[in-house]
Amino acid sequence: MDKRSFSTPVDLHDIAVTDSFWRQEMELVRQAVIPYQWEALNDRVEGAAPSWCLHNFRAAAKLMRRKKAEGAAFKPPVYDPSRRFNALPADPSQADEDTFYGYVFQDSDFSKWIEAVGYSLAQHPDPALEALADGAIDLVCAAQDDTGYLDTHYIVNGMDQAFTNLKDNHELYCLGHLVEAAVSYYQGTGKDKLLKAACRFADYVDERFGPEEGKMRGYPGHEITEMALLRLYEVTGEEKYRRLACFFLDERGATPNYFELEGRRRAEREGKPFKPADYSYYQAHKPVREQEEIVGHAVRAMYLCSGMADAARLNRDEALLDACRRLWRSTVREKMYITGGVGGTAHGEAFSFPFDLPNGLAYSESCAAIGLAFFARRMLEIEPKAEYGDVMELALYNTVLAGMALDGKSFFYVNPLSVNPEACRRDARFEHVKPVRQKWFGCACCPPNIARIVSSVGAYAWTRSDTTLYTHLYLGGSVRFKGLALELTTGMPWSGDGKAVVHAEAPISCTLAFRLPGWSDGAQVACPGKQTEIRNGYCYLSGAWREGDEIALRFPMRARLRVADARVREDAGKAALTRGPIVYCLEQADNGPDLHLARLSPEALGAACEHVEVLDGKIGGHPVKLLRAPGKRLVQKEGGALYTDYEAPVFRDAALTFIPYFTWANRGEGEMDVWVRTV
Amino acid sequence: MDKRSFSTPVDLHDIAVTDSFWRQEMELVRQAVIPYQWEALNDRVEGAAPSWCLHNFRAAAKLMRRKKAEGAAFKPPVYDPSRRFNALPADPSQADEDTFYGYVFQDSDFSKWIEAVGYSLAQHPDPALEALADGAIDLVCAAQDDTGYLDTHYIVNGMDQAFTNLKDNHELYCLGHLVEAAVSYYQGTGKDKLLKAACRFADYVDERFGPEEGKMRGYPGHEITEMALLRLYEVTGEEKYRRLACFFLDERGATPNYFELEGRRRAEREGKPFKPADYSYYQAHKPVREQEEIVGHAVRAMYLCSGMADAARLNRDEALLDACRRLWRSTVREKMYITGGVGGTAHGEAFSFPFDLPNGLAYSESCAAIGLAFFARRMLEIEPKAEYGDVMELALYNTVLAGMALDGKSFFYVNPLSVNPEACRRDARFEHVKPVRQKWFGCACCPPNIARIVSSVGAYAWTRSDTTLYTHLYLGGSVRFKGLALELTTGMPWSGDGKAVVHAEAPISCTLAFRLPGWSDGAQVACPGKQTEIRNGYCYLSGAWREGDEIALRFPMRARLRVADARVREDAGKAALTRGPIVYCLEQADNGPDLHLARLSPEALGAACEHVEVLDGKIGGHPVKLLRAPGKRLVQKEGGALYTDYEAPVFRDAALTFIPYFTWANRGEGEMDVWVRTV
Repeated sequence: MDKRSFSTPVDLHDIAVTDSFWRQEMELVRQAVIPYQWEALNDRVEGAAPSWCLHNFRAAAKLMRRKKAEGAAFKPPVYDPSRRFNALPADPSQADEDTFYGYVFQDSDFSKWIEAVGYSLAQHPDPALEALADGAIDLVCAAQDDTGYLDTHYIVNGMDQAFTNLKDNHELYCLGHLVEAAVSYYQGTGKDKLLKAACRFADYVDERFGPEEGKMRGYPGHEITEMALLRLYEVTGEEKYRRLACFFLDERGATPNYFELEGRRRAEREGKPFKPADYSYYQAHKPVREQEEIVGHAVRAMYLCSGMADAARLNRDEALLDACRRLWRSTVREKMYITGGVGGTAHGEAFSFPFDLPNGLAYSESCAAIGLAFFARRMLEIEPKAEYGDVMELALYNTVLAGMALDGKSFFYVNPLSVNPEACRRDARFEHVKPVRQKWFGCACCPPNIARIVSSVGAYAWTRSDTTLYTHLYLGGSVRFKGLALELTTGMPWSGDGKAVVHAEAPISCTLAFRLPGWSDGAQVACPGKQTEIRNGYCYLSGAWREGDEIALRFPMRARLRVADARVREDAGKAALTRGPIVYCLEQADNGPDLHLARLSPEALGAACEHVEVLDGKIGGHPVKLLRAPGKRLVQKEGGALYTDYEAPVFRDAALTFIPYFTWANRGEGEMDVWVRTV
Repeated sequence: MDKRSFSTPVDLHDIAVTDSFWRQEMELVRQAVIPYQWEALNDRVEGAAPSWCLHNFRAAAKLMRRKKAEGAAFKPPVYDPSRRFNALPADPSQADEDTFYGYVFQDSDFSKWIEAVGYSLAQHPDPALEALADGAIDLVCAAQDDTGYLDTHYIVNGMDQAFTNLKDNHELYCLGHLVEAAVSYYQGTGKDKLLKAACRFADYVDERFGPEEGKMRGYPGHEITEMALLRLYEVTGEEKYRRLACFFLDERGATPNYFELEGRRRAEREGKPFKPADYSYYQAHKPVREQEEIVGHAVRAMYLCSGMADAARLNRDEALLDACRRLWRSTVREKMYITGGVGGTAHGEAFSFPFDLPNGLAYSESCAAIGLAFFARRMLEIEPKAEYGDVMELALYNTVLAGMALDGKSFFYVNPLSVNPEACRRDARFEHVKPVRQKWFGCACCPPNIARIVSSVGAYAWTRSDTTLYTHLYLGGSVRFKGLALELTTGMPWSGDGKAVVHAEAPISCTLAFRLPGWSDGAQVACPGKQTEIRNGYCYLSGAWREGDEIALRFPMRARLRVADARVREDAGKAALTRGPIVYCLEQADNGPDLHLARLSPEALGAACEHVEVLDGKIGGHPVKLLRAPGKRLVQKEGGALYTDYEAPVFRDAALTFIPYFTWANRGEGEMDVWVRTV
């Protein structure tokens, strides 16, 4: 491990994203998603499942006020496991103000929102939004127990049972999101009230968990705490947070299995039979350093890998880095959709077995693609290789953006690569697949997760070391590094040509590194007079940079027909169309129904594929490039028999219109296919 | 409706099946399956889920003895809905002798066994087996309440709640199977003890159910009762059984929905919230005469249609026959696998939407294919059309026989058309699909159902009217009709050539009708000197029949490449190989793994397809014909990337070996595919 290649994200204050594509997405988040989420947190979105998030914080804060007022006379609630999920009132306004409602992890809805707000404020000050956030933070801090504990599910229902079900009850997950939110808000606004609250909760957890005698040897059922604590360590310099995160990582999957131990204890206490679980769902079936295959709940797995990569970098831990590399390979070479989505099966929202990537039944959760981007950026922080950047870009431009409607007001949790609306309506196997985006979800991880990654996309585009500024993604905008500002102008994702201009009052010696996108043949980065080196798919330009130095970026972009490894049974005989980082798909709105009858003619494709600039209004408000390709359509035989003798299939010519995958399902319900038959 | 074309099955006493194919299957049932089932009914099959069936009858019989002994002092058990499913003892020998165990419908395990025994004894007397059956019948009769009620679940747990959950608790279903068993045993042996018990139970139900004031307007949650009562009517001539069956049929799906009414009553009594169900699962979403599409649980749907067809015939009810024809078309033109299996989805073991016929995720329950054969024969009884016979033959030779191992000792519940064992092991979506047959099932409908249809296959091969003997299936054997015996010699299912020879002491004027199989081009049935008419795919030969008259049967049989309607998305670009009534498949044992890489070359197929006689021992003990076809295999690219640029696929020549679908999974675990890519 070469520490000299380490880098960390550039501070968002030093970044200005200005290009039309990402600026539009970020403004959507700022103007539509963040306000919408606030309404959702307050259970005010009509027709959407209530979040209960702020309701629960209010209930907890009320209890805390009573505790302070009553002092020693205070009788805390006693946890009743049978009331874990309280019956929901039909109308949120009829809710009992002292009762906890909803999923055990609803506190994290607040944290994800604050995290996105923090990123947004760093780049776009907004006093009204900041005041709203400050008020929410006051409420959340008022709900914190004087021990530092902060999880409304147990505060309201009875803290006597806190930390007794780490496997399922998400307290440490909520801590993780709280930390991420607090750091983001602190970095975005300089305000540390929430950061202090998060530290107090982390301190309390640190007192309770660890290898020392008398402490619990448990770890999060849903990972995120690991990477969050390491981020907290990087911000505060507090060694104990690093130690606690590494304890969680290395204790995971140890024998005897902690989830089994706590399960047996719980069963005994409740007088119920103990049922073992499949611990691979939690990536706790074996120690993380021994894991060879990426398995289980896809979001958890990606968050775990992200934490592992952080720890590998911070500890210069070669063995852990090897495990990260193995799990990376397992993910991207055997279990990733061409859209950068991961998680092939709805059962456990999980990775399926290698090369099992069903298109119609895909899970491919938006949050899992976000987790893959987390993982990729952390690998880039350790070792800049274009492979990581390619996957990060793929996940962001396709599955992550597909998770949100072009108006920012509805969302996909699941991102299939093939949709037949009739199947979604009539076949329970497709229950998890929605043919149109939903307003909100009771389990609302995805919409706020999209908000937080889109509003911090600059931190994925650029990382820095002491000597080098890395450009991983080609967003138009500018980034400050040492005494210079690098101004990027690009046509991405529709054109691979662009330039980077240096602004500097005085010459500055440093290295500017640019990723050479894997989707481009003959990608070139050039700046006359600078020392040029290409390594691992990055072009390193070194020298003394002066005002006006211009770096030419030439990334030839063409429509490409892609095929999957033959072991992917669902994609046999099919191809997908991509152009630059964008994956395309057929939609019924352009191509009529029965998309499975369409055929792409690989021979005819090449130059015949034309690019059409599409104006605002055609698909949402997004200017997008469509692709037209010569194709065919199978002519269906007349007659009523279900099975007939084989006859050579008859096709008629039919031009096919492809739209970017991330723009699908913005024109009502219809069929969609990424993979199209070539024969 | 032309009553002159009506026919009914030939009495099994008048049939002798002698050909090597079906005789072997029947002997398997007689010598292996029936004894094995007896062990299963007694919970003596090691490693198999206990049936609890005879245990429950013993518990009920003990209670009945106590009731008689105690007289007025007897305190009957009071039903406790929370004890509906009693916890099972780890070891059946540790079971409490007074407790009911297992599914609510376990009584039917006995009935299905007795029904198969009855058919077998009709054709193959066996005093030891008959004595065993008589003993079991004595036990079952001893369990009957003096009211006639006979369902051990309620007898043991409390008859106060009998008939309060028709939707789920299967009492009327158990009555149906009891009637089928009793009639079969009576017809097979002449003994009427069980028949009288069945009539007493039917009488009791008739007193409680009907349109009259004060009677319940309910109907079976799981159909079978309808066709069973109509059969009982045909055997006893008792009008009330016909009336009761027709009441059940016509009340089904009426408004208000009975299942909803009883559900609300039950919820109120138990103080629980009422949850409506999807009544289409039970085919009770609308009146049966108004149903256009076959929906819901596939076995129930097929049993319902069978009862409807019986009622249509017995009542000469044109409107009901129209409904039967509509549901038939919906089944065979939109929802039937090429193997004659039905039920595309495991969710509800049900029909999916039209043309949704997934191969790997298929349900295609053995019992549902049996139900389709029931339905087909009943349609043939009304209107002899080759279409019905073709489907009946298809279901029997393929899905029904595939349900049983070649040694008769293990069974499939689910009959997929594509198997990847890794998916079955690792992907929960495939939980219902077993790559090898299982010894027995806790819910053991399929093995005994296969036993009862195989041992009565003669009743599907031949039906008769006053004037005409219909040959629907070409089993080798002889059948008596009026004063003649028709002796069939065939090479089925491996050759379509055969003959039928008439034996008669004196000339007899009548019509002999033969189905012209749909799988044969240029099928011919000829007998010199007889009047010949072809109508609806049947060849009618009329005249005075004399000893030695010989009818030549020429049904040219060739390997055929079949394709599915283009709306069946899973079969796009694929073909299946059939020959005569037999559907073929590729198995890993012959073709290596990764069967999805195989390609059939349609152009090369034709004459190049060779037939290989396979000797005993190659696949189980069955002599079968294999097919070899020229084919190709996709050459997999080397290299680690999951997605690569399209290149024209490279194939190598590879002869493909196909085995009959019904013989698959007799050589250990491996991949299997019915549908093979042609491009």
